[in-house]
Amino acid sequence: MSDKKKFAVILSGCGVSDGAEIHEAVMTLYAIAKHGATYDIFAPNIKQHHVINHLDGSVMNETRNVLIESARIARGNIKPLNEFNPSLFDALIFPGGFGVAKNLSTWAFDGPNCTVNPQVEGAIRAMHKLHKPIGGLCISPVLFAKVLGNVTVTIGRDASTAQAIENLGAKHLQAGHAQVVVDEKNMLFTTPCYMLDANIVDISNGAKAIVSEILKWI
Amino acid sequence: MSDKKKFAVILSGCGVSDGAEIHEAVMTLYAIAKHGATYDIFAPNIKQHHVINHLDGSVMNETRNVLIESARIARGNIKPLNEFNPSLFDALIFPGGFGVAKNLSTWAFDGPNCTVNPQVEGAIRAMHKLHKPIGGLCISPVLFAKVLGNVTVTIGRDASTAQAIENLGAKHLQAGHAQVVVDEKNMLFTTPCYMLDANIVDISNGAKAIVSEILKWI
Repeated sequence: MSDKKKFAVILSGCGVSDGAEIHEAVMTLYAIAKHGATYDIFAPNIKQHHVINHLDGSVMNETRNVLIESARIARGNIKPLNEFNPSLFDALIFPGGFGVAKNLSTWAFDGPNCTVNPQVEGAIRAMHKLHKPIGGLCISPVLFAKVLGNVTVTIGRDASTAQAIENLGAKHLQAGHAQVVVDEKNMLFTTPCYMLDANIVDISNGAKAIVSEILKWI
Repeated sequence: MSDKKKFAVILSGCGVSDGAEIHEAVMTLYAIAKHGATYDIFAPNIKQHHVINHLDGSVMNETRNVLIESARIARGNIKPLNEFNPSLFDALIFPGGFGVAKNLSTWAFDGPNCTVNPQVEGAIRAMHKLHKPIGGLCISPVLFAKVLGNVTVTIGRDASTAQAIENLGAKHLQAGHAQVVVDEKNMLFTTPCYMLDANIVDISNGAKAIVSEILKWI
């Protein structure tokens, strides 16, 4: 059995506006492998909330599936989220993108009153109960605030999102690029990435920082 | 006016089996930015050859557009390839993926007898005429062999693809990960990436190597 640390990465589709943010997803996978750890990729087998034309921002008259589209980023090497077994992993991590707020939850539409996909909620609760690290890039930390409540996270500096998080009983700390907010009690690790003005180097730096920090705690 | 070196990156969709290979595309963008250069992203405004379910490999009963799907990787910051002006760029580069062989050309179906999208052919010929560097990852070098003929490239070690390239009057050199074959006379730079067994770190290393090599020649 390998003694490499193993991450579960949960994707929410393929594309910033209706799925997983691609740069954040790829840079998360890269950071994990670069640090000598391994990963399995998961996504819920559900319909996307909608399909956005990423050229002009319009809603397309199509339906797509979160697992099937996430498989594009995973090159087919992906499992449905209902097969996630928390005992097999050392850490769980969520790249960002609107898919987190539209497919994994309804945050984009309902804010603090959102619902969270039951499999996503189950994965977060299970890892939290085992006191294993859970990482969130970009908008993903709203999932942790919604599911766990009294936690400390960052989504960068956006005041209205920060307020919405605090309305859930969580604490929001401001952070810049490649800064990782660590909630030691809850083993939560969060960093802003594209929630701030960012270029692709910022995203790589953020992904490396959060993965590196998580590995210190495993 | 910035004195930063500027790359044009041509994408062929979004997903290894029917479009641009996502890891290669993202790592190419990252390598360009990391090396202090800049990029504009282009894709032809054409229908994809087909849509592949990346979970099970089946053909889906859908139609998608190469420019619109490529915009997912580009976060919307992309232009139709007919707006490409070679005088504005220092280098041109193609990430790989089956989109190169299915959308930018018909190589996947016709091998050396393939046709190449006229805008893609025009971009390659224009940069070649200006003696500006053209880079190709993965399967992209087949475009250079088809369009330019007597050139030297690598697609790694795949014997049948290498033979098909040589049938076009080009020379194929074997290469490993992060090795870049330089055709100095034609200013062509090629590296295998996912044409070899590879992980995401190999892809990042390959992208960094080819971008770094190109920058030496600008």
